[in-house]
Amino acid sequence: MPDIEINSNDLIKEGSNVLVVLDDKKRWIVKVKSGKQFHCHKGYFDYEEIIGKPYGIRLLTNKSTPLTIYDPLPSDYLKNISHSSQILYSKDIGAILLNGGISSGSKVVETGTGSGALTSILATYVKPEGHVYSYEIREDAFKTATKNIEKLNLTPYVTLKHKDASLGFNEENVDAVVLDLGNPIEVIHHAYDVLRPSGLVSIFLPTYNQVEKIFEQLKQLNFGDITAIELIKREIQLKKNAIRPKTWMIGHTGFLIFARKYTKTI
Amino acid sequence: MPDIEINSNDLIKEGSNVLVVLDDKKRWIVKVKSGKQFHCHKGYFDYEEIIGKPYGIRLLTNKSTPLTIYDPLPSDYLKNISHSSQILYSKDIGAILLNGGISSGSKVVETGTGSGALTSILATYVKPEGHVYSYEIREDAFKTATKNIEKLNLTPYVTLKHKDASLGFNEENVDAVVLDLGNPIEVIHHAYDVLRPSGLVSIFLPTYNQVEKIFEQLKQLNFGDITAIELIKREIQLKKNAIRPKTWMIGHTGFLIFARKYTKTI
Amino acid sequence: MPDIEINSNDLIKEGSNVLVVLDDKKRWIVKVKSGKQFHCHKGYFDYEEIIGKPYGIRLLTNKSTPLTIYDPLPSDYLKNISHSSQILYSKDIGAILLNGGISSGSKVVETGTGSGALTSILATYVKPEGHVYSYEIREDAFKTATKNIEKLNLTPYVTLKHKDASLGFNEENVDAVVLDLGNPIEVIHHAYDVLRPSGLVSIFLPTYNQVEKIFEQLKQLNFGDITAIELIKREIQLKKNAIRPKTWMIGHTGFLIFARKYTKTI
Amino acid sequence: MPDIEINSNDLIKEGSNVLVVLDDKKRWIVKVKSGKQFHCHKGYFDYEEIIGKPYGIRLLTNKSTPLTIYDPLPSDYLKNISHSSQILYSKDIGAILLNGGISSGSKVVETGTGSGALTSILATYVKPEGHVYSYEIREDAFKTATKNIEKLNLTPYVTLKHKDASLGFNEENVDAVVLDLGNPIEVIHHAYDVLRPSGLVSIFLPTYNQVEKIFEQLKQLNFGDITAIELIKREIQLKKNAIRPKTWMIGHTGFLIFARKYTKTI
Repeated sequence: MPDIEINSNDLIKEGSNVLVVLDDKKRWIVKVKSGKQFHCHKGYFDYEEIIGKPYGIRLLTNKSTPLTIYDPLPSDYLKNISHSSQILYSKDIGAILLNGGISSGSKVVETGTGSGALTSILATYVKPEGHVYSYEIREDAFKTATKNIEKLNLTPYVTLKHKDASLGFNEENVDAVVLDLGNPIEVIHHAYDVLRPSGLVSIFLPTYNQVEKIFEQLKQLNFGDITAIELIKREIQLKKNAIRPKTWMIGHTGFLIFARKYTKTI
Repeated sequence: MPDIEINSNDLIKEGSNVLVVLDDKKRWIVKVKSGKQFHCHKGYFDYEEIIGKPYGIRLLTNKSTPLTIYDPLPSDYLKNISHSSQILYSKDIGAILLNGGISSGSKVVETGTGSGALTSILATYVKPEGHVYSYEIREDAFKTATKNIEKLNLTPYVTLKHKDASLGFNEENVDAVVLDLGNPIEVIHHAYDVLRPSGLVSIFLPTYNQVEKIFEQLKQLNFGDITAIELIKREIQLKKNAIRPKTWMIGHTGFLIFARKYTKTI
Repeated sequence: MPDIEINSNDLIKEGSNVLVVLDDKKRWIVKVKSGKQFHCHKGYFDYEEIIGKPYGIRLLTNKSTPLTIYDPLPSDYLKNISHSSQILYSKDIGAILLNGGISSGSKVVETGTGSGALTSILATYVKPEGHVYSYEIREDAFKTATKNIEKLNLTPYVTLKHKDASLGFNEENVDAVVLDLGNPIEVIHHAYDVLRPSGLVSIFLPTYNQVEKIFEQLKQLNFGDITAIELIKREIQLKKNAIRPKTWMIGHTGFLIFARKYTKTI
Repeated sequence: MPDIEINSNDLIKEGSNVLVVLDDKKRWIVKVKSGKQFHCHKGYFDYEEIIGKPYGIRLLTNKSTPLTIYDPLPSDYLKNISHSSQILYSKDIGAILLNGGISSGSKVVETGTGSGALTSILATYVKPEGHVYSYEIREDAFKTATKNIEKLNLTPYVTLKHKDASLGFNEENVDAVVLDLGNPIEVIHHAYDVLRPSGLVSIFLPTYNQVEKIFEQLKQLNFGDITAIELIKREIQLKKNAIRPKTWMIGHTGFLIFARKYTKTI
């Protein structure tokens, strides 16, 4: 491909966030700083070496271990953003996008913000014309999330609110509401109010007991087309002549409930 | 909510596509035509009744069965678009978006187009600034997909190509390639060429044998960070005092492989 | 193996039950009757042809379709015994044997008998020195089970009781109790009474709601070491170059709870 | 139950093996020795306290922690027998019993013996009239297994052979063969020879690649009714108002293949 020009976006710059990959487990998102070095247990390299080079380059540390420098995805940040609260997994977020009616241009209300992990993914998918309004009651989480959203340059697409969601939402006619908080029961009727006609709520629930309670409540609140699923992710071991599911896996993250707002009769 | 104004977008119009839901299994996407009626085995209603009403209304058929009229999601169309070829499921598409690096603004190459089901979802997520280039070798599928993309008003974001992908792609520096065709082996090196540095390929593979072959090929082609997963979706029966996974489920759709393009050494 | 003598037990006789296998799905348990024929949609053969031959022979029908005649296993009968009630699957029965403390020589109480499917498997595993006492409240089920147990020549190892289990069991010091009935809640304290010290109860429960209730009750009744599992069986498609889990599967049969009787303090 | 006499078998004796349970994870099988003490991080008790008492007693350590003393099951030993080699799980063993045609009275050939974990379970299920012949090529494993089988008083039902199974088996007309070794390919034709007509082979295989190879070989060797399954065990968290599958699970142990010996044509 000698004749294909590389976009300047695909070149690593001073200050860029890069994903450094050693293997499946050892991977870091770091900021490129000229004059500094990246260090891990397998050696180091000078950031100077990669500035101006395209993403995707593989280089050797001083101890001759290959490291590859990728352009980080939103889902790479997911694993990196501080684990201060219950974290949604990419399998679940994928389902929330698809089944929860969230795509480019959507206006979404979310609570709780937590560290902003889900918020940032949602913003990445609704931008540039959509927007995410995210509510968080805890001050420390609100501050952490604010920083994380800034780092990812998503501030134009996100409004973070340091506010108790059980007191209600201030938006109107949003396309989707995403609930990932300890007690969705207290918030669910506000979700109904803030949704546009036919809008969807997506709820993440770790236990069967919550599924049961929320289901009863959704029915009473004029939510229809209520479905609940659980996604189980099996990672496959990729090894020559020994392809198999991996021995250990995360067996359960949570259940997902989806429902649509309807209005009674004509 | 008497004081909230409903957006005109949320009103059902002559010519709108609407999703009519009777229950989990019985659901139809239809075009609203004044002067005509919607008919199912539980009765009928006049489209006239719903024109000008907001989405999400629930009405009764002439036989007093409630039907709800929702605004269809991209994932609702998935089930509707003709099943002329292997169909991706929303659980798998969600993972392709998240792990395959596809979001608002992405430039994506896809093959094969099939009926355009995946194409339309991808377009919904990359628009308005991104674009999907989709290759299909079979003329009938190409024609069907063209119609389906038009129906969904996604034509500005999609370029359908009636062309054999094993002869190569014409694009440059795309963010992501999605392969969902019988023999990805013949196309995978073209995927490498068309990707931008650090771009990702996502491959859907029904059998373990394909996983093994593609994995070996990816390694040889300078694809790194190769992972394979399988997502298992369990639907939960929502019934008072009888919450449980449903008895029957789809046990397997396919494996998903993800890999990133790298370029060797500095 | 010309020099290995075949045991007379391994020869098909007049009156033997045989398993005739066409493929995965098409398989029948039939009684061999000289002068009669076996018929299926792929043709017929005369039972005379197989009498005196060893089990495991493969023959051709008059339409040249190969059929194989095997010696039926207890688990083959499982699929055959009338489906008049909730049926346990072999995956679950295997777990009940292993985790429920049931093996050769065990004295077991079971309820409800249903068609005798589980009863017959338990008898096959506890015989010749163990015994199964099985309680059934419905007269028709009791009669069907009586016939099924006789057909399988397991009568010496089974005592069927046409009795309401919620009124209590008449045995003493049994090793294990297996509960597979609609409302185990009413029977669980009788299970405690009939068990020997350190004996185990195994309970099959379709819904999460029952799991929750039974768990609370077990704790109150001095049952310890309480565990609950769910077994998911995936069948693998065996096809050259296309090995994969099968598309459709049974997603859920039930949860299994196991607990051991303890007596408080010294 | 004041009037029920406890069997002397249900009383803890000097020299008995007992299962001491603190919780799910903390559990030990120990031999009762008068004059000695049981110690764990939660305190100790004198064995003297439990001698002559029925199994199932719950007592307090010197630090007031309750411990329960149960009669150990074969499956409890499974977890305890040294992990010197690949270990089968109870879910898989249950399926081998049911689908592999092994029950009270069966004559079974097994290889490799490993630490004797599976051997001991098989013996527990085929005794008193059945027998297990188990082959092991490694001397250290052979010695360990010999000791383990003795400890469990199963010697009368087991013949351990320090011999390479790829050289063939010495038995005749056995009901079942169980293969759990690194390279079953070299042994599978001997399995055919040693089986009675209609006898079954059960094979435990960790990878898809082995499933594929063994399947092709089974077809060539006149094995019929070939099926392959995978059992996934989910443990359920039993906690008031928080019933859910546990977060971490063992995602994969292996695949199980079952097949029946047939003999061609009449």
